[in-house]
Amino acid sequence: MPLDSLSATFAALADPTRRAILARLSEGEANVTELARPFSMSQPAISKHLKVLERAGLISRSRARQARPCLLEAAPLREAADWVAFYRTYWERSFDQLAAHLDELQQKEKSHAPKD
Amino acid sequence: MPLDSLSATFAALADPTRRAILARLSEGEANVTELARPFSMSQPAISKHLKVLERAGLISRSRARQARPCLLEAAPLREAADWVAFYRTYWERSFDQLAAHLDELQQKEKSHAPKD
Repeated sequence: MPLDSLSATFAALADPTRRAILARLSEGEANVTELARPFSMSQPAISKHLKVLERAGLISRSRARQARPCLLEAAPLREAADWVAFYRTYWERSFDQLAAHLDELQQKEKSHAPKD
Repeated sequence: MPLDSLSATFAALADPTRRAILARLSEGEANVTELARPFSMSQPAISKHLKVLERAGLISRSRARQARPCLLEAAPLREAADWVAFYRTYWERSFDQLAAHLDELQQKEKSHAPKD
């Protein structure tokens, strides 16, 4: 069963090497040799990651030049950002609850502290 | 090798059923029976998805009650949102380029149109 596009995007992002490749490409196009350099990984291993990114539409590869440089294609990230943004109120709420809880603990600490 | 937390979050989101479960839990807590109802899936299949969500810290399960209702824990989504937000300028740029290209096509169309 082929992945829906949002699932393919999230699956592609679920790997630190693939996220590092996207970060590198945000600075400009690069070919496989250049992309493999900062990682202790073989070119075939990097090529495998590039295929996952390409299938998810997160990168494109030029066919014009022999080195086939990779380009960042950020458009699918928009859908991912929209999906996650829906939950903003929920993570803000849990942050507020944590802050309130810490506040409560501090108040208790104060009331238990010895008075001068 | 255990997944880093951001990879675990993205991997958990890379499935439409798991995303639907989170959407359901955003409306309030629910137990496995309630969560399985809208899907044509067995409870063990749903339980498997819940384990992935729980390991990623996206849900918690009450141990107090026998039905062990699930609760949304949106906090890990914040890290995901921050990661994706970095690329906003890039997807906006590709949108601008598309808009400019369409504009150019329309201009060409006009200049080729027969004059009255």
